[in-house]
Amino acid sequence: MNVPLTPVRFLRHAVAQFPRNTAVVCGGLRLTYAQFGERAGRLAAALGAMGVGSGDRVAFLSTNCHRLLEAYYGVLEAGAVLLPLNIRLAPEELSFILNDAGARVLFLERDFLPVAEKLLSSVRTVESYVLLDGEPESSSSSSLLRRENYEALIGAARPHHPDIMEFDEDSLAELFYTSGSTADPKGVMLTHRNIYLHALYVAVAVGYSEQSVQLHTIPLFHANGWGLAHSLTLVGAVHVMLQRFDPAEVLRLVESERVEGMNLVPTMGTALVNSPERKKYDLGSLKRVIFGGAAASPTLVREVEEKLGCLCHAGYGLTETSPVLSLGRPKKEVPLEGEDRFVRLAMAGFAIPGVELAVMDEDGRPLPHDGKSMGEIVARSDVVMEGYWKRPEETEKAFRGGWFHTGDMGVIDAEQYVRILDRKKDIIVSGGENISSLEVEKVMLAHPAVYEAAVIPVPDEKWGEVPKALVVLKPEAQATQSELLDFVRPHLAGYKVPKSVEFCEELPKGGTGKILKKELRKKYWPQKVEAK
Amino acid sequence: MNVPLTPVRFLRHAVAQFPRNTAVVCGGLRLTYAQFGERAGRLAAALGAMGVGSGDRVAFLSTNCHRLLEAYYGVLEAGAVLLPLNIRLAPEELSFILNDAGARVLFLERDFLPVAEKLLSSVRTVESYVLLDGEPESSSSSSLLRRENYEALIGAARPHHPDIMEFDEDSLAELFYTSGSTADPKGVMLTHRNIYLHALYVAVAVGYSEQSVQLHTIPLFHANGWGLAHSLTLVGAVHVMLQRFDPAEVLRLVESERVEGMNLVPTMGTALVNSPERKKYDLGSLKRVIFGGAAASPTLVREVEEKLGCLCHAGYGLTETSPVLSLGRPKKEVPLEGEDRFVRLAMAGFAIPGVELAVMDEDGRPLPHDGKSMGEIVARSDVVMEGYWKRPEETEKAFRGGWFHTGDMGVIDAEQYVRILDRKKDIIVSGGENISSLEVEKVMLAHPAVYEAAVIPVPDEKWGEVPKALVVLKPEAQATQSELLDFVRPHLAGYKVPKSVEFCEELPKGGTGKILKKELRKKYWPQKVEAK
Repeated sequence: MNVPLTPVRFLRHAVAQFPRNTAVVCGGLRLTYAQFGERAGRLAAALGAMGVGSGDRVAFLSTNCHRLLEAYYGVLEAGAVLLPLNIRLAPEELSFILNDAGARVLFLERDFLPVAEKLLSSVRTVESYVLLDGEPESSSSSSLLRRENYEALIGAARPHHPDIMEFDEDSLAELFYTSGSTADPKGVMLTHRNIYLHALYVAVAVGYSEQSVQLHTIPLFHANGWGLAHSLTLVGAVHVMLQRFDPAEVLRLVESERVEGMNLVPTMGTALVNSPERKKYDLGSLKRVIFGGAAASPTLVREVEEKLGCLCHAGYGLTETSPVLSLGRPKKEVPLEGEDRFVRLAMAGFAIPGVELAVMDEDGRPLPHDGKSMGEIVARSDVVMEGYWKRPEETEKAFRGGWFHTGDMGVIDAEQYVRILDRKKDIIVSGGENISSLEVEKVMLAHPAVYEAAVIPVPDEKWGEVPKALVVLKPEAQATQSELLDFVRPHLAGYKVPKSVEFCEELPKGGTGKILKKELRKKYWPQKVEAK
Repeated sequence: MNVPLTPVRFLRHAVAQFPRNTAVVCGGLRLTYAQFGERAGRLAAALGAMGVGSGDRVAFLSTNCHRLLEAYYGVLEAGAVLLPLNIRLAPEELSFILNDAGARVLFLERDFLPVAEKLLSSVRTVESYVLLDGEPESSSSSSLLRRENYEALIGAARPHHPDIMEFDEDSLAELFYTSGSTADPKGVMLTHRNIYLHALYVAVAVGYSEQSVQLHTIPLFHANGWGLAHSLTLVGAVHVMLQRFDPAEVLRLVESERVEGMNLVPTMGTALVNSPERKKYDLGSLKRVIFGGAAASPTLVREVEEKLGCLCHAGYGLTETSPVLSLGRPKKEVPLEGEDRFVRLAMAGFAIPGVELAVMDEDGRPLPHDGKSMGEIVARSDVVMEGYWKRPEETEKAFRGGWFHTGDMGVIDAEQYVRILDRKKDIIVSGGENISSLEVEKVMLAHPAVYEAAVIPVPDEKWGEVPKALVVLKPEAQATQSELLDFVRPHLAGYKVPKSVEFCEELPKGGTGKILKKELRKKYWPQKVEAK
């Protein structure tokens, strides 16, 4: 018997089996799985009543909130495709995405009304704008802004849950736009089957259970906050929503909700371990911190294990891969003693069940898994997207040879742990040598005074380009350029040592807290930045 | 990207990620996952060299042994279909199955040579017989018995692992014959996809991990020993093989291999808790005993929890469902205090992820989940078989209304726990009232002198049929008919109380230790037994 593989089944299962379990904690609101499921069904019905049908795109511009989580199920129950938008994008970028995707409805939080006003003139496809929170003002300049808000809309609807056999597992479920550092954002097409299998693989790999309590530190619009919208739901676990990252609020929620796990980008981890609030809270419930979104340093992994008192390791994936490909959890037969522990746990990890990883040279030949042979990391798995929305050429290029090409350069070692050395486009080429900016950053981050570091290429007459370090120091800490360079020199080949250090107040970051190197490069490469 | 869902991926993943982990402990032999994978690949190549091709059926007549486990992967790598045979079957039954399935090769252990000799004249399709252990005798009467045994055959082959993209997830992977209490055995067709998804669901539900060590107490020919051939492999856990059930050997292996879990039929559990050897061994590693194959009594669940010192609960499934449908593990919001704990844990449990269960009346109408409305338990899931081999009418009947009909009568309560009251055919109808033989047996089993009990219908002039109890007492224990009936009377409606008790030395059992009521009924119903 073949039953369509769709994430809709996860919430239905949780509603049937765990109706009284707490599903979502969002500010002062607590919803059980019975309530979560009913609200998702009401959203589906409301969308149907608005004329949204099979395959239509429904966009959400929302912080982490129970309503956005409901959309992950309700939009799919309506047969439509969810398009979660990154709230940090500029109006022009949002406008591009909405038009490219052909979104018919945009749900948005009140805070984004000023942005929405700017979209009205340029976005052609959106027929309705619905406020997620607060009351629409009658004085709004837009006739497209519906007079009911989300609560009124779903409150008036009767839950709609079509026969599960009617779903098509190969149809589109979610459309995510990648940041597109070199060109227009591209829509990543994830099918019901992609998401369903990804959630099972992650649940097995991490060991999520009905007992799990996870804090959604990562915005859900980043490939569902790393797929957790589904992995947690399928086991009936607790979603604790975090609207915006704030170290004190994270620590408070860990204590009050007995949070067991959270996924962080390294900058969040740095903020938490350095937070003066840390010792005020009981973090005893914490079992697991997983880093992703950017490379974590062994130093940071150690600090999290020591200061937050839990297992800490990295993971790796892309929007195109639902997103998790690998997790850096310990392996039974791989010793984790002394400093090696943190070095290994900070690596990108090894493939989760259902995923095959390889490293390939420019000609698509597999390279040995020896920890030295650098090439592009490629993947073959059910978690890999269907393709890029309306970009057949880019899709074909990404899938050449039957493997998905991640665009990340790295190595795989004999224990099958992946180490990402750099985005293909962030590699610095100096005098013909490849320099991984991440490798240099990791060494700099080990210096006790360094809070954040970014290494970028700057022009050089002799070498073409050379590495330069941009550094934010910890509060109260002091260090000079020569101190830092002396510190890194013993750990790096001569050509990898930055030629200069610039101290900054802060570094520009994207939605997940990733440092935007493209922005940093602009200053030094006014002509070149778009080509890199 | 769609990658075919095939269990072959599980072993390949374990070989890639956990090559040095112990995969199989079988007597004095220990194999790593690298070795397990290589041997499966060699078996695939050897089968290919014998001319076995896509879709061909390959039969195994074997006790629990690493070679049978290898077949679960090697036969599939060869593109063929695995047909595991129940070693307890009589030659005529084996002959029927081999002909019905059209098996081309039969692998068998030396102990079954006398049986195989009897098959030669009646089995038309088998071209080769291969000994799994020991050396073939040149004096064998059969020219079909190959002169190499299994080890020589695979030793000469180079591992064969075709491109995973060449598999068809909807093709047949395994063919299991059900015992067929009413007619000829029927072949249950499980696809690659059935088995793949089942393994993931069970791994999530039970929480198997790389740390798990499972003792294969159940013969693998019973739907893979409840699917463990795959769930354990996918996480790189340890398979400890048990050739034949023996309480002392089980206890010894639990201690020496630090076994964490085992699945038992209730008769095995009874033997273990009553074993005089129990206190000699350190059972501290045991975390989980799961009962299946027949209903477990609350008394037995309590004894296992108290005497073996681990969580104990029941599960439920059929060969037709890969086999697990539900597991009786605790739920967070369902209190498990006092005696209620054991009553609940002894129920058939609630649906695992990926499975929907319902209870339906004769006309296919869903009944309420109130713990009272008895009907047939039906399932909708990816774990449900493709159908019965060459039995389109029986397949259609089993799938009427789009749900798989289990043939088990039961109730589902408000917490979604299933209680199986009886096989449809074991229900006793006395004066128009339905009596669950299992319910009566459970009450009798709570008596301290009772070791085993079976309740069957016997003819009665007034009521048509009435219940009769067949009882085996514990060693040294004594009880009379009137003592036992006085004991059960307060717990049962009058018409459910057996009209007589017969004391026996032992009860006839099938391959999993299930009591064969069909055999017991024969004595009293010489004419009727086949119709029931």
